[in-house]
Amino acid sequence: MSTNYEPYVHGRSDREAERLNCQASKLAELLHQGTRYPQGSRVLEAACGVGAQTSILARNSPGAEFVSIDISPESLIRAKLRVSEEGITNVTFRQADVCHLPFGPETFDHIFVCFLLEHLPDPLHSLKGMKEILRPGGTITIIEGDHGSALLFPDSREAHKVIDCLVHLQREMGGNALIGRELWHLMTGAGFAKVAVSPRIVYADRSRPEFVEGVKNIFIAMVEGVRELAIDRRLVDNETWEKGIRDLYRTTEQDGTFCYTFFKAVGTRDL
Amino acid sequence: MSTNYEPYVHGRSDREAERLNCQASKLAELLHQGTRYPQGSRVLEAACGVGAQTSILARNSPGAEFVSIDISPESLIRAKLRVSEEGITNVTFRQADVCHLPFGPETFDHIFVCFLLEHLPDPLHSLKGMKEILRPGGTITIIEGDHGSALLFPDSREAHKVIDCLVHLQREMGGNALIGRELWHLMTGAGFAKVAVSPRIVYADRSRPEFVEGVKNIFIAMVEGVRELAIDRRLVDNETWEKGIRDLYRTTEQDGTFCYTFFKAVGTRDL
Repeated sequence: MSTNYEPYVHGRSDREAERLNCQASKLAELLHQGTRYPQGSRVLEAACGVGAQTSILARNSPGAEFVSIDISPESLIRAKLRVSEEGITNVTFRQADVCHLPFGPETFDHIFVCFLLEHLPDPLHSLKGMKEILRPGGTITIIEGDHGSALLFPDSREAHKVIDCLVHLQREMGGNALIGRELWHLMTGAGFAKVAVSPRIVYADRSRPEFVEGVKNIFIAMVEGVRELAIDRRLVDNETWEKGIRDLYRTTEQDGTFCYTFFKAVGTRDL
Repeated sequence: MSTNYEPYVHGRSDREAERLNCQASKLAELLHQGTRYPQGSRVLEAACGVGAQTSILARNSPGAEFVSIDISPESLIRAKLRVSEEGITNVTFRQADVCHLPFGPETFDHIFVCFLLEHLPDPLHSLKGMKEILRPGGTITIIEGDHGSALLFPDSREAHKVIDCLVHLQREMGGNALIGRELWHLMTGAGFAKVAVSPRIVYADRSRPEFVEGVKNIFIAMVEGVRELAIDRRLVDNETWEKGIRDLYRTTEQDGTFCYTFFKAVGTRDL
């Protein structure tokens, strides 16, 4: 089993694990709405990371059997621990690369993919690979964000600049932080049928404290995570960075508002 | 009665009237969801324009009595004609300026405002004025767009540039095409209580032909409406304009996608 896995723009630290767990619980209702798998179905979760979505998936569909894969053994250890602590028994973990899936044709009834395609150099190729291991009539569900959707009040040039640093660095690592809007293109391009895309919007103002916390602990923390890299690479100067982050936090205070759109797509492998 | 009414960035032509009617019917379900007024309530619609929202409002709440005002006599004639052609009888029209409302304190049980604040130089002042004529316990409903929310695939620098022309020209005329994200700020700032903002997202891909048509006939037509002004003012050169518009249409074709967020806010006048 190889431990040479891909670099990941957000890193794999404890703070990042906390961020991913927080993200999952706040957004769970918004993102998982409509995703329930029938009794006895065999579902691939690619890639599970630290298991933030895994426990929600498994609890929402207690009769389904999940195989959750990830390329990182460290993330898998966290995911296993989390799921076993929660007493969940319908998940099997396995180290595997989503770009080289170690499964035979038509192995799964359904596939679930969350916040993965944004990190892949060739998401279309990966989707085609996933289609192969899906049984005819089976579904694939994809959830991705789109950092271009961030809408701020008060608006701030510097805040958009720091967000753009993350977009830029993710692109340098072969990913695409603006992939949400492309899901229709990717899913139809990979040959899935009955593709349906539904945007899911996070909107936070003072009357929605849970979402305000989510914006801080999830989105702004994620942007802050690339500070060193962005400044080392001179994508932005220190002063602009500080103001940008301050302005992002300002959208979570007083009369500020923050808006972000996720995209969820479901497609079917033709019979 | 004065006919010196304010300039309006979109103009008041037949094509514009058609655009506004189309806009209302396509978006009606999305925007009016949740807006129903009880039997016998007296509701102010400020400003009704050509009556695109008026007929939806009046049909959705047949027991309420609407007073629909607008500053433009020409628009009022169109609105009256439309409403009478549809056999609607619970609307009274009156020429009036939303910035100088000719109504006594606590005249209305509810107020409905759609696509108006974006055109006002001082929306906060206008909201305060509306609060005065609302009875304690009555509600105000505001619906506005936000052109900064336009998300395109394929993305295009030129397409954003032509959208920015409209934003710029609207600002020059004293308006704000990015006002949707500010509704929480404005409503709480005007002193309304129990303010609740809900974003309403329009997403169009080939599987949603009605929304695709809406994007073309409503959003792109609106942007195209400022072509002459934008080029005369040298906000953009002809070549960039043509490419920008072409790229906007491209989002409505093949594997293109277009996303836009409206904001709906409801607030109450404290007892």
